[in-house]
Amino acid sequence: MERFAIRGHICYSEDKNKIRTTEHGYAVCENGKCLGVFEALPEEWKGIPCVDYGEKLIIPGLVDLHVHAPQYTFRGLGMDMELIDWLNTHTFPEEEKYQNTEYAQKAYSIFIDDLLHSSTTRACVFATCHKEATLWLMEKMEEAGLAGYVGKVNMDRNSPEGLCEKSTERSAKDTEEWLLASAGLSNVRPILTPRFIPTCSEELMERLSELQKKYRLPAQSHLSENLSEIEWVRELCPEATCYGDAYRLHGLFGGDCPTVMAHCVYSNAEEIQMMKEQGVFIAHCPESNANLASGIAPARKYLDQGLKMGLGTDVAAGTSLSMFRAMAAAIQCSKLRWRIQDESLAPLTVEEVFYLATKGGGEFFGKVGSLEPGYEFDAVVIDDGMLRHARKLSPKERLERLIYLAEDRQIQAKYIKGKQVLPI
Amino acid sequence: MERFAIRGHICYSEDKNKIRTTEHGYAVCENGKCLGVFEALPEEWKGIPCVDYGEKLIIPGLVDLHVHAPQYTFRGLGMDMELIDWLNTHTFPEEEKYQNTEYAQKAYSIFIDDLLHSSTTRACVFATCHKEATLWLMEKMEEAGLAGYVGKVNMDRNSPEGLCEKSTERSAKDTEEWLLASAGLSNVRPILTPRFIPTCSEELMERLSELQKKYRLPAQSHLSENLSEIEWVRELCPEATCYGDAYRLHGLFGGDCPTVMAHCVYSNAEEIQMMKEQGVFIAHCPESNANLASGIAPARKYLDQGLKMGLGTDVAAGTSLSMFRAMAAAIQCSKLRWRIQDESLAPLTVEEVFYLATKGGGEFFGKVGSLEPGYEFDAVVIDDGMLRHARKLSPKERLERLIYLAEDRQIQAKYIKGKQVLPI
Repeated sequence: MERFAIRGHICYSEDKNKIRTTEHGYAVCENGKCLGVFEALPEEWKGIPCVDYGEKLIIPGLVDLHVHAPQYTFRGLGMDMELIDWLNTHTFPEEEKYQNTEYAQKAYSIFIDDLLHSSTTRACVFATCHKEATLWLMEKMEEAGLAGYVGKVNMDRNSPEGLCEKSTERSAKDTEEWLLASAGLSNVRPILTPRFIPTCSEELMERLSELQKKYRLPAQSHLSENLSEIEWVRELCPEATCYGDAYRLHGLFGGDCPTVMAHCVYSNAEEIQMMKEQGVFIAHCPESNANLASGIAPARKYLDQGLKMGLGTDVAAGTSLSMFRAMAAAIQCSKLRWRIQDESLAPLTVEEVFYLATKGGGEFFGKVGSLEPGYEFDAVVIDDGMLRHARKLSPKERLERLIYLAEDRQIQAKYIKGKQVLPI
Repeated sequence: MERFAIRGHICYSEDKNKIRTTEHGYAVCENGKCLGVFEALPEEWKGIPCVDYGEKLIIPGLVDLHVHAPQYTFRGLGMDMELIDWLNTHTFPEEEKYQNTEYAQKAYSIFIDDLLHSSTTRACVFATCHKEATLWLMEKMEEAGLAGYVGKVNMDRNSPEGLCEKSTERSAKDTEEWLLASAGLSNVRPILTPRFIPTCSEELMERLSELQKKYRLPAQSHLSENLSEIEWVRELCPEATCYGDAYRLHGLFGGDCPTVMAHCVYSNAEEIQMMKEQGVFIAHCPESNANLASGIAPARKYLDQGLKMGLGTDVAAGTSLSMFRAMAAAIQCSKLRWRIQDESLAPLTVEEVFYLATKGGGEFFGKVGSLEPGYEFDAVVIDDGMLRHARKLSPKERLERLIYLAEDRQIQAKYIKGKQVLPI
């Protein structure tokens, strides 16, 4: 039985409308799980080790529901295109390089190190279609103490020759080999990752569905991000009633297959209903949707309708790994959408985006994203002292300010599943 | 005759469509003015002192055309309101505190220190209506080596009792006293600052116009930011044909009075034409316009029509002093506007926003914002080594990436008018 506590000003989401704060509170961990947050350390745990972080802020680790590891190298570059052109010009040529394991290791090392030093404790990661490099990424993430899902990407059509998998059979076989090879990992787990409908043949989707059933795997992909993309899916899959239905037809849209879909900028009523029924998670990626001029997803509508949702950075269509910036972008874009596009959908609040970045997205991993009893103990300790202020701020105000002004260097300590991973 | 050079990878705007880069180039300064950028140091200057910044990036100092110094304390807080409510709830109560010079000095010290450590070398600053605190701010900015315009704010109506100036006479008199008291400053100069039409009586505007003529002063204010504000101005000033005309009627809208107007989100054709004829500068503040749900200004239209324009952070309606973030927001918001509101106005490019943040806004200060011969020598040296990459990037790519990922700690050195102000 391993127990310890950390002390500081603690903030976490109770629900999407409430942030609970405890000044100089104690968060207690037992065997990787949180026992709760207390104003004073309960008598029974008086002797356990406790790190007192003083005036620092403690929050649950943040959850990035959508990030592309091999795109990290070119974040902030080539942001002058829409989705399909951007994929062909920047993304696919870069991802091709990951066939070269030496290049992959060099590039992934940077991604892993920066992810470790970020406020993110869980992530749903796209790798590339290369099984060796993907496995290496997973092993090194686990070694670094990180947790989450990583997917070897599948793409057997409409992709450049150097990146397109040689055959559907090869794609499926590589995927199964990768699944078996990653079986020994405990914190970084595999997730089925058909890139998106345009690059995955129907036969491939069927094969992935078989693997899903055989190994009981979650899945991640992209959905209704861009108008041209949606039109393309309609042409490629005329039997589907909506984009989401093209996944559902192959059993890869929630239900028995826990699924997270990035974007949903243009999901129609039918698709929304289908996501709700199938329990599909939405990874809302507002910065990416601005950078690729995709639009602004109606996050307020999804929240109000009770859909499962979290935030994603979507590096490199999003430029930063910072989940704080994802929160800021979610608020800002929702305000612009309300002003310009649809006054019936009110802007998102601080409470809501903090919920999305913690408990909302965390639910995809189980009991993750809170410091309530029973949750896995993921926590980040933040020293925001460099953001000076002429008066004393409350913990809630400090959290609000960090949404706009956080930098990784403010992270003082980081815990994942009860294990301290920062400082190294 | 004081001459020196700095060496590094140099980027500056030639015009709004062209960034000129020189790898391992020399920027030469003589008596505070730039003599140009050279691939090799010309023979005649071979012996002058030269600091070699190696692989670091050198750019012109950035120009913030609109920032509120007393609002810096609450940046990132209370971002859930529109303009008028936000002013009444957060801004005015905070600005009231600046009557207390001790509080003002404490808060302004933080602002000055952070501005010094930012990439900004010139700024148009709003203070409050308090002349003592405003003068103190100017003196300390000048001592720190900063340059720009600072305005004592005028507001004699529609303001809370504690902040509203006691009379029009008092407002005008305080303004003249402040002008005389600041006469000894050379780099931080006064600028007339009627807050905006709703808080300035017609009589006050007349008095300010007299002061403008007497002392030949520039002016700054707000224009067409928010729909309710515009409606209010229409009610308050029915004789004006547009919001801008309400300034013009009192001679405070360009022409002989160099003027910069923040926002212009909703300027109509008449107002645009008037700004063009009068040479009024626009301070485009995209992050602020998102945070207060004001909308997105048609910056592309202003650029295409040849209006004078730069970028502003508009702290604290904008959350960050970083002009890099202002550039990123300008691109991102222009993409969303193009997608959602008006496909006839193409998104802004990297070249355009870099121009706006340097030469475009710099023009308000004279020959500022470039490293071409004859420009005042404002430069920032940036070490972006922490943004690791798996391959070598060109200076232009590094600049593009910094738009999204710059942090103040990357600033290695900073020069204003040829004087090195950082590191301290």
